[in-house]
Amino acid sequence: MARVLVDVMLKPEILDPQGEAVANALPRLGVNGITSVRIGKRIELEFEGEPDLDQARAVADALLANPVIETFTIHLEEVVAADTAEAAETGEENAA
Amino acid sequence: MARVLVDVMLKPEILDPQGEAVANALPRLGVNGITSVRIGKRIELEFEGEPDLDQARAVADALLANPVIETFTIHLEEVVAADTAEAAETGEENAA
Repeated sequence: MARVLVDVMLKPEILDPQGEAVANALPRLGVNGITSVRIGKRIELEFEGEPDLDQARAVADALLANPVIETFTIHLEEVVAADTAEAAETGEENAA
Repeated sequence: MARVLVDVMLKPEILDPQGEAVANALPRLGVNGITSVRIGKRIELEFEGEPDLDQARAVADALLANPVIETFTIHLEEVVAADTAEAAETGEENAA
């Protein structure tokens, strides 16, 4: 089973009010080293058989990203079924 | 300059109506190989100096993820300033 990840982010020149709201809240948490926060969408497409990046791109173009204000990148992610659920559960970081 | 990515997804047992809406629209696009669609948040935290994964985790815990229904994973992403903007622009896939 393989998963294709589509990361959709606002274009750099587009204002990100959500991200700014988080950035403005950081000093109250005592966090000062972060200069900017950008928030986008992460979509996981699970394929039955072999993952098809072209099909994933077509879906992203048609349904997942608004090309006027957003850009997207596509990644292939091998799903190791049990471990992923366990890793996601504990929210372990995975400094790639 | 380094960026920490926080990926926030709904827990597997939580219903994802957005993802289901996209999954139901796929046959109309002629896409049949995708068995499930899950939609979450991708947050980019840009650090001034050295990235601090513990600080990123504290921000994720406090502001970015609801621990009752969501899990998050943290990744370190080296930002190669110019290329990333250009790669994002062309929406190039990056089958990692």
